[in-house]
Amino acid sequence: MIEEKGILFVLSGPSGVGKGTVRKALFEQDTNLQYSISMTTRNIREGEKDGVDYFYRTHEEFKEMIDTNSLLEYAEYVGNFYGTPRQYVEEMIEAGHDVFLEIEVQGAMQVKKNFPQGVFVFLIPPSLEELKNRIQDRGTETEDLIASRLQEARKEIEMMEAYDYVVVNDSIDNAVQKVQAIVQSEHCKKERVAKQYNKALLEVEK
Amino acid sequence: MIEEKGILFVLSGPSGVGKGTVRKALFEQDTNLQYSISMTTRNIREGEKDGVDYFYRTHEEFKEMIDTNSLLEYAEYVGNFYGTPRQYVEEMIEAGHDVFLEIEVQGAMQVKKNFPQGVFVFLIPPSLEELKNRIQDRGTETEDLIASRLQEARKEIEMMEAYDYVVVNDSIDNAVQKVQAIVQSEHCKKERVAKQYNKALLEVEK
Repeated sequence: MIEEKGILFVLSGPSGVGKGTVRKALFEQDTNLQYSISMTTRNIREGEKDGVDYFYRTHEEFKEMIDTNSLLEYAEYVGNFYGTPRQYVEEMIEAGHDVFLEIEVQGAMQVKKNFPQGVFVFLIPPSLEELKNRIQDRGTETEDLIASRLQEARKEIEMMEAYDYVVVNDSIDNAVQKVQAIVQSEHCKKERVAKQYNKALLEVEK
Repeated sequence: MIEEKGILFVLSGPSGVGKGTVRKALFEQDTNLQYSISMTTRNIREGEKDGVDYFYRTHEEFKEMIDTNSLLEYAEYVGNFYGTPRQYVEEMIEAGHDVFLEIEVQGAMQVKKNFPQGVFVFLIPPSLEELKNRIQDRGTETEDLIASRLQEARKEIEMMEAYDYVVVNDSIDNAVQKVQAIVQSEHCKKERVAKQYNKALLEVEK
């Protein structure tokens, strides 16, 4: 039987936007998503399991992963390395599972470079959404406040550019539902479906 | 206030696939979709209302619509013309409403030509989906049967090419849910969202 391949979904956004909360709520729901397990050099803690909470590696092993381009992204944090192993993601996708990665914007940009076929979702704060409404009220805010809000909004719009989708985090339920709609509709994309069928036809014709 | 523009969604597919049933079930649910009202030259029937069931026009008026390219598509059926008025669709979209059009494949291709910014969804019968599974069982079917199924599948795959999404009509509920996911995720597309915000920023800066 020809299995449909999985898709890598990357959820990112400005810090403090609520990426972790949305991810947690998403995984509490009925989902076929497979959460991407990170690799780390930090020590394993009581109750944790290798290959479940993290893949635990030594600094030497981690540096070799970096040198052989075996990570989709990595970062150093308080003396330890954290990263996303390419092989794990590729094996999951090959086996037909969607992989979900929740990550900071710098990490997302690394993944985008190393795995451009992923689907990139940018979570934005409702403040940006409200920018549209504030236009009506212009004149009621001080010029300084408007200027600083504009600068912030411009920065966030620039960050959006590298993403496929933008989801407003106006409520956790809304944001989760939109992410699920994106997952479902991505599987309906003509390119993906046609590819499967053409592959199926070729198999029959052999 | 800056209003988000609506989107034209076109549902089409091979005849007999169940487009009408899916459309009916979709509109029985809570939806913000506005069903596209057709224009026709046929007589108004008892209980029907102009501008609700159809826009009723004379043959002369309809032909002028054709000549002035005022229809997104049209077809003749048992001596009468039926078509989709461009102005109605454009006004709805401008006012922020999504418009939904369920139509035969020939009509969908006319709309695609006249309104390429629409989102085109192709409904396919589960038989094509099952093609993948049948591969496993090859040898259990006669060669003629396999050949005719292959030809049918090839024709449907060719038709798919012009569409953005492919939805398998394995059950009405599944198909409706996928169409709704497509509607929701299209509104999250970066291009649409970024455009809105950039427009909003420009307004503030004026």
